[in-house]
Amino acid sequence: MAEAVPIQGARADRARRTADVLRQQIHVGAYAYGLPAESELAAEFLVSRNTIREALGILKNEGLIDRGPKVGTHVAQRKYAHGLDALLGLKETFKNDGEVRNEVRVAMTVVAPPSVAHRLRLEPGAKAVFVERLRFLGNLPLSLDLTYLAPDIGAEVLKHRLETDDIFALIEQVSGQVLGSATLALEAIPADAHSAATLQVPDGVPLLMLERLTSLDDGRPVDLEYIRMRGDRITMRGNLIRSKP
Amino acid sequence: MAEAVPIQGARADRARRTADVLRQQIHVGAYAYGLPAESELAAEFLVSRNTIREALGILKNEGLIDRGPKVGTHVAQRKYAHGLDALLGLKETFKNDGEVRNEVRVAMTVVAPPSVAHRLRLEPGAKAVFVERLRFLGNLPLSLDLTYLAPDIGAEVLKHRLETDDIFALIEQVSGQVLGSATLALEAIPADAHSAATLQVPDGVPLLMLERLTSLDDGRPVDLEYIRMRGDRITMRGNLIRSKP
Repeated sequence: MAEAVPIQGARADRARRTADVLRQQIHVGAYAYGLPAESELAAEFLVSRNTIREALGILKNEGLIDRGPKVGTHVAQRKYAHGLDALLGLKETFKNDGEVRNEVRVAMTVVAPPSVAHRLRLEPGAKAVFVERLRFLGNLPLSLDLTYLAPDIGAEVLKHRLETDDIFALIEQVSGQVLGSATLALEAIPADAHSAATLQVPDGVPLLMLERLTSLDDGRPVDLEYIRMRGDRITMRGNLIRSKP
Repeated sequence: MAEAVPIQGARADRARRTADVLRQQIHVGAYAYGLPAESELAAEFLVSRNTIREALGILKNEGLIDRGPKVGTHVAQRKYAHGLDALLGLKETFKNDGEVRNEVRVAMTVVAPPSVAHRLRLEPGAKAVFVERLRFLGNLPLSLDLTYLAPDIGAEVLKHRLETDDIFALIEQVSGQVLGSATLALEAIPADAHSAATLQVPDGVPLLMLERLTSLDDGRPVDLEYIRMRGDRITMRGNLIRSKP
């Protein structure tokens, strides 16, 4: 085995490696009172102060930290962990972090687009209930959620308080069933101009885009969602088990 | 319940809703031979052709489709599904899609940064093996993977073919154990300039950033990875089960 040395490579490579470790340290709350001085970080990572500056520049560009002369380096925006393991609504997920409030932009019966009808196992041309909500935690938007519900469930859900309650909880309440499972697809996409303005972020910033089809315990799919989460506010977290193909 | 009508709202809202449904249709291969004409899509989604154009503009901006006069609208880039359910390496995951090839940028023993040592349950100042790979499927990069391995496992892994083999498979081979589980964090972040150049994408485009700590079957964490996946090439897919908090 070669002798252990500081990681070599171009400064940009060292900066990326440093930024990646720092990013996770920030997420787990290691620097709640500010980041250490550049010289301390340089000693910790065995890199130059210039490399530390470049690493902090990457994290600043992500909106994760603020830097200023004299005030030092601080965490600009806390990220909230949303679970990949459990099927939970935002209100349930963040019950210890603050109040989730929903601005209901649309709540109405519509003709489901054919592929939406197909996924919800409705006849072509069937009606569905469409709900569009801008969801806040604190004063800032977290996500923009587009939801298609099976018409029978949706009609009942519309009678309840969409401004404060998770749709998952409402589906269970009106159906008398618990939710069973969901299939999901998760992507990183750039915010289009209008979505960016709605989510109060700059045009083109990365969003976590979640498509999720949720079924009742009896296996019937009732809830198809397209959720844009602000990349600077949400981290998806979970566990995986090894299962050989 | 109100009468069913086409979804109302500003054209940008209708375009987003249309784009979201189309995006998933593209992912599941519904339009392998090109997208339908604007007029057909307009009839399908009960929106105007201007709204369809705006929706297609969103998807073009994501790099998902190409549009041109006379040639119509085609899928520009296929997205590959990476599993959120199972703990699989890229080679195992894409064995039916093509050859995964790794450009090994770094493979060496290093002093682990303190928080890396902590996560791998090593003493402060302990050595670890660091591997940096740019991973290709076909001719294009899929991801840039930074990996810290426990020193005993890592020293053995370095003796094998990192250019072609998944590190997961090599860990199992050299340890004589199967992998147990992993904890992961998934974010959408903008590509910094140097990472973007390495991954052959424009500066600032969205990346899926995965941090994953993988343990052997006996519970010992041996593999800490920081993985930047091209947002335009990978979708994470999985299933969730409802479990009440």
